[in-house]
Amino acid sequence: MRIAQVAPLYEAVPPKLYGGTERVVSLLTEELVRRGHEVTLFASGDSVTTARLAAVTERARRLDATSRELLAADTVRQLDLVFGNARDFDVIHCHVDYLAYPFSGLVSTPTLHTVHGRLDLPYLTLVYRQFKHVPLVSISDAQRTPLADIGVTWAGTVHHGLAPERFTFSPTPGAYLAFLGRLSPEKQPDVAIEVAKRAGLPLRIAAKVDAADQEYFDRAVAPLLDDPLIEFIGEIGDADKAAFLGGARALLFPIDWPEPFGLVMLEALACGTPVVARPCGSVPEIVRSGVNGFMADSVPDLVEAVARVDALDRAQCRRDFEKRFSVARMVDGYEALYRSACAQARAA
Amino acid sequence: MRIAQVAPLYEAVPPKLYGGTERVVSLLTEELVRRGHEVTLFASGDSVTTARLAAVTERARRLDATSRELLAADTVRQLDLVFGNARDFDVIHCHVDYLAYPFSGLVSTPTLHTVHGRLDLPYLTLVYRQFKHVPLVSISDAQRTPLADIGVTWAGTVHHGLAPERFTFSPTPGAYLAFLGRLSPEKQPDVAIEVAKRAGLPLRIAAKVDAADQEYFDRAVAPLLDDPLIEFIGEIGDADKAAFLGGARALLFPIDWPEPFGLVMLEALACGTPVVARPCGSVPEIVRSGVNGFMADSVPDLVEAVARVDALDRAQCRRDFEKRFSVARMVDGYEALYRSACAQARAA
Repeated sequence: MRIAQVAPLYEAVPPKLYGGTERVVSLLTEELVRRGHEVTLFASGDSVTTARLAAVTERARRLDATSRELLAADTVRQLDLVFGNARDFDVIHCHVDYLAYPFSGLVSTPTLHTVHGRLDLPYLTLVYRQFKHVPLVSISDAQRTPLADIGVTWAGTVHHGLAPERFTFSPTPGAYLAFLGRLSPEKQPDVAIEVAKRAGLPLRIAAKVDAADQEYFDRAVAPLLDDPLIEFIGEIGDADKAAFLGGARALLFPIDWPEPFGLVMLEALACGTPVVARPCGSVPEIVRSGVNGFMADSVPDLVEAVARVDALDRAQCRRDFEKRFSVARMVDGYEALYRSACAQARAA
Repeated sequence: MRIAQVAPLYEAVPPKLYGGTERVVSLLTEELVRRGHEVTLFASGDSVTTARLAAVTERARRLDATSRELLAADTVRQLDLVFGNARDFDVIHCHVDYLAYPFSGLVSTPTLHTVHGRLDLPYLTLVYRQFKHVPLVSISDAQRTPLADIGVTWAGTVHHGLAPERFTFSPTPGAYLAFLGRLSPEKQPDVAIEVAKRAGLPLRIAAKVDAADQEYFDRAVAPLLDDPLIEFIGEIGDADKAAFLGGARALLFPIDWPEPFGLVMLEALACGTPVVARPCGSVPEIVRSGVNGFMADSVPDLVEAVARVDALDRAQCRRDFEKRFSVARMVDGYEALYRSACAQARAA
């Protein structure tokens, strides 16, 4: 098939550091090429791919503080490049949320839009009411909840996948707990710290602090770091991630928001490291209590869960990941949706 | 003709206070309806029009501090409403800049885009290089300058117009100089103050201070206000504008940027008040030195020009405005462009 992949322009594909969406788009794109599809990736010019790269910008805009207006202009150009050449593709797969929705009805090429963000923001109600007929893909079933009453068109759910070979399995549990992600209130790093302290276990925090979260970090997190058990190691790259996660006794994921998909849970499981998480958003679709981790709500229950993770079989965590969250399984899911979108377009 | 007018959603059409683009869209829309066209105005729901109002939002977003993301979502919905129903129109006339450009090539209805903003921002080069074939309307010839090398498609220039009957002619010159607009560095209110002080004439400043300009105001303007000659009266509405401008000896317009069109010059001229301006942007297309005002570059030359304005015939200022800048003349210009766009579309 001739497939257009339309990536966000914030980060390169794959991203240099964090950037869940760009990572998933990269894995999907590379595997589609490997399977013989003719893929064009519309992304920033510093992206690296075996697909044809349609470079919209010279480089990703992320680190440019004055980039907001630029990013809007870039995305408008990107959508023009994609939809102005819609006939070159059998299917157009967008990852840029609602900016692309109005174009779906204006071209005859079938389109799919994977929704990567949260859907519980009030202003999105108007958006999705208007774009009810645009075919969407959710990244977890939980993600759909806020739109349940609107009757949008869900083509399917495709859970993210990761490449098993990128993560070395670590058979022995390490001494510390791991926290990996943005240091924002809804990720609850403060709860992770509290759980580690009460459990009497070291916690290593690998995280970036976004400009928007600096005030929160200074006020609510920094004062908690002055403890021999707690170590803040800053933002880490892909190369260090597997060692960081694989060396941990468990990943702490005490989120307090409906996270549509927690990619870091997959990264931990791929290393054999179980996950202790609060049951928000996609967590119940990923964590199977007693198999690859535990779900618990309160701090005391999380502390108790941490105490029990050593009883879990790390090899079982890895097998569960390979079976349910490999790139191959993700791409099977998308290929099926592409085929059915094309069949529907032919029938129309 | 069946005409779609696509207005920005920042302000209602017409705007409650300042908002040049929304004011022009309103005048254009009402006159087109008066001339028998079937006009649909895509605008905020608090707009007031004799056209069919397609309300995209309940109200304009301007005063909402958290509106940036909202505004993007609103505009995406607006463009879907317009271009998803393109067949309902003989011509689509957009006033929302580049966000609408990618849609022009995807519908068979002819489109026109009036460019209301400055074009000398570096990131716009990439935008206009890509959208070379989208038919644009400039609001002054000067506005086109930064794109001269790109070879975009200019359908024409249509100067803004205002309704003569909305402005009472004031035959006698008043005692003070007037400054009206945003208090931003490129409008040079500090130069206006300096000119007034050197001329020994009172200056009344009617202006809003945008959040983005607050630091500039506090630092560079506020300290200059402590002078018996200078009076800062804040933001004024339409009702007070004619009295404010008509009562002045001259409008001071000492801008230092390529302003694509200075609507306030027309408002002054409509009252019979001459304009003393720096020759930037559209100014030389509006001010005719010795007829309806003077152009001067430096502070001493501006002071000298102010001394000479009493020699100008205020009735001549008004006549010049009626002849060159009435709504009727503006709408003649747009009607001609609509007809030629439709003829081109039929021929294609």
